[in-house]
Amino acid sequence: MAVGNTPFPALPPLEGVRLGSAMAGIKKPNRRDVVVIELPATATVSGVFTRNAFCAAPVLVAKQHLEQCRAEQRSPRFWLVNTGNANAGTGDAGLRDARASCAELAQRAGVAVEDVLPFSTGVIGEPLPMERLLAGLSPALESMASDSAAWENAGQGILTTDTRAKGATVSLDVDGQQVTINGITKGSGMIKPNMATMLGFVVTDATIEASLLDRLLRETVDRSFNCITVDSDTSTNDACMLAATGTGPRIVDDAQITAFREALQQVMTELAQAIIRDGEGATKFITLQVDDARSRQEALDVAFTVAHSPLVKTALYASDANWGRILAAVGRAPVDDFDVNRVVIELGDVRLVEHGGRADGYTEAAGSAVMAASDITIRISLGRGDESATVWTSDLSHDYVSINADYRS
Amino acid sequence: MAVGNTPFPALPPLEGVRLGSAMAGIKKPNRRDVVVIELPATATVSGVFTRNAFCAAPVLVAKQHLEQCRAEQRSPRFWLVNTGNANAGTGDAGLRDARASCAELAQRAGVAVEDVLPFSTGVIGEPLPMERLLAGLSPALESMASDSAAWENAGQGILTTDTRAKGATVSLDVDGQQVTINGITKGSGMIKPNMATMLGFVVTDATIEASLLDRLLRETVDRSFNCITVDSDTSTNDACMLAATGTGPRIVDDAQITAFREALQQVMTELAQAIIRDGEGATKFITLQVDDARSRQEALDVAFTVAHSPLVKTALYASDANWGRILAAVGRAPVDDFDVNRVVIELGDVRLVEHGGRADGYTEAAGSAVMAASDITIRISLGRGDESATVWTSDLSHDYVSINADYRS
Repeated sequence: MAVGNTPFPALPPLEGVRLGSAMAGIKKPNRRDVVVIELPATATVSGVFTRNAFCAAPVLVAKQHLEQCRAEQRSPRFWLVNTGNANAGTGDAGLRDARASCAELAQRAGVAVEDVLPFSTGVIGEPLPMERLLAGLSPALESMASDSAAWENAGQGILTTDTRAKGATVSLDVDGQQVTINGITKGSGMIKPNMATMLGFVVTDATIEASLLDRLLRETVDRSFNCITVDSDTSTNDACMLAATGTGPRIVDDAQITAFREALQQVMTELAQAIIRDGEGATKFITLQVDDARSRQEALDVAFTVAHSPLVKTALYASDANWGRILAAVGRAPVDDFDVNRVVIELGDVRLVEHGGRADGYTEAAGSAVMAASDITIRISLGRGDESATVWTSDLSHDYVSINADYRS
Repeated sequence: MAVGNTPFPALPPLEGVRLGSAMAGIKKPNRRDVVVIELPATATVSGVFTRNAFCAAPVLVAKQHLEQCRAEQRSPRFWLVNTGNANAGTGDAGLRDARASCAELAQRAGVAVEDVLPFSTGVIGEPLPMERLLAGLSPALESMASDSAAWENAGQGILTTDTRAKGATVSLDVDGQQVTINGITKGSGMIKPNMATMLGFVVTDATIEASLLDRLLRETVDRSFNCITVDSDTSTNDACMLAATGTGPRIVDDAQITAFREALQQVMTELAQAIIRDGEGATKFITLQVDDARSRQEALDVAFTVAHSPLVKTALYASDANWGRILAAVGRAPVDDFDVNRVVIELGDVRLVEHGGRADGYTEAAGSAVMAASDITIRISLGRGDESATVWTSDLSHDYVSINADYRS
């Protein structure tokens, strides 16, 4: 199931960027499960990774390789992605496998092993099937191309329980020259990124110095992938990568940075929201907007407390305007000196709660009308400050349980 | 659904304690939904209440009345409980209704309004149906009795989505005299007490000074009701009450206190576990034991992170030894400087995880054999200290979603 129709957009080619994919049978036959993304030598590359203490072998290796390239003032040239197996909880053998897969691709492409960053997603705790993975490299490399079909195939080739590929593209004008940002992402369950959800690969043809690229990635991820949750479970394999190919206009001055950041934020937010729309078992797309908090963190804490409440999520699934459950979730959020009499809760444009109880004039019919839609906004004003946060989440349905009770079978 | 068979035990009469109940049609006809518990004038009474900021009107009134009785050095004489309506999120009208229901009972019983403590559980945000509630007082008062049938009817009369009444009784010998502790509780969903879950009423015939009673209640609740979770949702109406009737032996010296605390802990733990066994949609009863932590809070944080993970809970529902999900949940727990190489995870007597990955010698068959049972223990050693915590939880099933998607309909 998934909320709404979001067809994969036509992602334009970016100079020097090629994508290949293959069906290697990592977990199941006849599905695209190995993806290779090539970046030009002129690129700069930035990444953010899961904060799960049990982070997966490829996450450790990708971070090491990225650091080594940075130290040697060159850029990674390949992102190597497999789905069907997360290579997580696999100990030293997992690290050896991740490095060996990088080495094999490096050798074929004539680059150093550190120029390849590995990414894996899928079942945790199974050994990476190296023979099948390495056998998939040849067909993946043979298929390398720059066109929109190659982007869409790559989008397909990184999915796990997702029901559809997720991509976004935005162009902007920088001093008369066009700059493009393309992105693909995957993720549907185990989604509560503590940095970036699952896997995201974003490439622009702009020229951006590495430390600025790092900052832009962090800032935009904090307001996109870090503001979504399906089930509160932070994955062991989350990674979001951003590359600037260095072939297009240079992003240097404040006006350029502001314009570029805005476009990048748009791509990141579209990709993050696409994950929620395709959340496991999702039938609703929920926007939780918390305003008038003392700090952004406080606003995020309230938003995530509501977003993680199984009782709120099942009420949303039932299209039941059970505002008592929203109120109860707000009331248990970790907020000091919480004066509930100042809290206002609105469902769409219908006021549910004020003065510590049900709002005057609220009617069940008005609440139910908002709940009947597939896109629902819940706005919570805390009435104690000027800070805000927006979080996106999905509902909790029978299908979520079915998907996760059957995932390994 | 519920895990295992736990028949309601025969609770013996306690001198001076009478219980009455009635079918008042608060929410639905033909179910016991009003309960009155009378305590003797010699009793001491203690209570712990929800920390939800949106706490319900009866919680506010019960706390006020208890404080006033304490200030005037007398004891509350009645606990008045209704199910079917939580009188929460009801603002000033809710407070008036809670006080008016106490006043009506006080007038009929010839006591002061502060001698009555009100408790409500059920749907949040609907006005308390005062006419029906007050009409239920007469039949409830007429039915007042001390025998085990009266205790069982009271146990029935406080239920909401529970599938069965929950009671426990323990007797101990204090200096040659018998002391008895009886308890009843309710709760099945919206269970993540931050003090006590839902409603619990425990009465002993011992004689215990009020400040000692407070301490015994806090200590035993912290290791029972505060260590259970069904769905992470802390209710607006949680309350756990403990009364000592003052008719039996006095609990004063250290040996008496230790023996009594142990017996009280047994009653509290049995009641708390009964809630989990009857958790909404529960098919499994899960014990999460976290050892070798730096602090009890750290151990609790890890245990609750795993207990709240929808992915762990659905794997438990599926009897799937998907240890990767347990590992991922442990890895996202809020623990500083977490060295995953020291973590050991065991499922029953089967070692799942050590040295940062799957344990040597682990087999899927061994894991599956443990998962097939309805009672499952997950033990997590953090390898960094001497503190422990035990938390009990249930799985996440299709029935949980059905129950909560249909609750108001």
